[in-house]
Amino acid sequence: MAEFELYCFGESGNSYKAALMMALCGLDWAPRRVAFMDGETRGEAFRSEVNEMGECPTLAHRGRLLSQSGAILDYLVQRTGRFGWSNDDERREVLRWLLFDNHKFTSYIATHRFMTHFMKQDNEVTKFFNARADGALKIVDRHLTGREWITLERPTIADLSMAGYMYYDGELGFDFAALPAIAAWRERIRKLPGWRGPYELMPRAAM
Amino acid sequence: MAEFELYCFGESGNSYKAALMMALCGLDWAPRRVAFMDGETRGEAFRSEVNEMGECPTLAHRGRLLSQSGAILDYLVQRTGRFGWSNDDERREVLRWLLFDNHKFTSYIATHRFMTHFMKQDNEVTKFFNARADGALKIVDRHLTGREWITLERPTIADLSMAGYMYYDGELGFDFAALPAIAAWRERIRKLPGWRGPYELMPRAAM
Repeated sequence: MAEFELYCFGESGNSYKAALMMALCGLDWAPRRVAFMDGETRGEAFRSEVNEMGECPTLAHRGRLLSQSGAILDYLVQRTGRFGWSNDDERREVLRWLLFDNHKFTSYIATHRFMTHFMKQDNEVTKFFNARADGALKIVDRHLTGREWITLERPTIADLSMAGYMYYDGELGFDFAALPAIAAWRERIRKLPGWRGPYELMPRAAM
Repeated sequence: MAEFELYCFGESGNSYKAALMMALCGLDWAPRRVAFMDGETRGEAFRSEVNEMGECPTLAHRGRLLSQSGAILDYLVQRTGRFGWSNDDERREVLRWLLFDNHKFTSYIATHRFMTHFMKQDNEVTKFFNARADGALKIVDRHLTGREWITLERPTIADLSMAGYMYYDGELGFDFAALPAIAAWRERIRKLPGWRGPYELMPRAAM
């Protein structure tokens, strides 16, 4: 049995954040496929035994069950010493972008993708999320202009978190050509030793 | 001039999270009203000089400008020693709920309130956010059943963050009577020494 077990599924970019970190760090880990499309995360067993928030990812490690991708990434920083910070100001700058990612960047992009790509919807709600995602993408593209990484002079978990949905080409509904700084940053992450895409690291929930 | 200055406005529950913490800690702080309804946070001056994310709150303290309520609360824990944790496992448990709050709890409640109460909308988008807010409220009500506080045996910044929108009675569009554990927890926070409501602590953006 692997040392780290990740409750996840391939379509989940939030799960990918943790999977990517473990791949880049060469950890001994294995995915445990969650049947999201069949409602597993909404079921009582999952909520009472795995994650009361009803979400992936959840990381099992030595008797601990950790949820929320940002908290899992923080835990992996502490375990590996990789992709972290060297003082509290740096830690808080990483936290600031983790929060923005969860609130606005990943959140709007992921909801838009789920509704348009998987649910095949095109309505007032998807238009709303498209506009919100567009606003968040522009803030990040501007932030990355003239910078290599989100927070420090090296990649941190802020980069890995914000990259969570960046490799689902063809599923996202926006064009990287209009976001040159994001496009260049995405390639920088892709070139990190050990990088693999989400569907290479995790089994899909949709069979 | 006060030691801490908070860019904020009374209607912003995200700003209230930081204002409440400073009130409870008795800090020397003052609000700096942001004209949100007039578009100040969307303007170039605000984005280039205060917060590139275009959001309130932003905290000014001794030459630092901090944004994202969760990062501000973390900073205030370090400055005051209040509402924090005693080890990394506790810190991560607080972080887990801060992230859930930003992604799902505050986020859905606040967007729903903004659209229904301030923009007077009632459409497919507000129905979507109402359903998402309802799901998040039920997760938190279940979590708080049999507990006094969100994470530890005492209030932490996870409680202050998640309470951000709880005192806008009449503006929220849901009934606390159906959420008994949240209702009791909200009263527990209200009884903390120094507690004041959002419109007592911050000037409104709508005149």
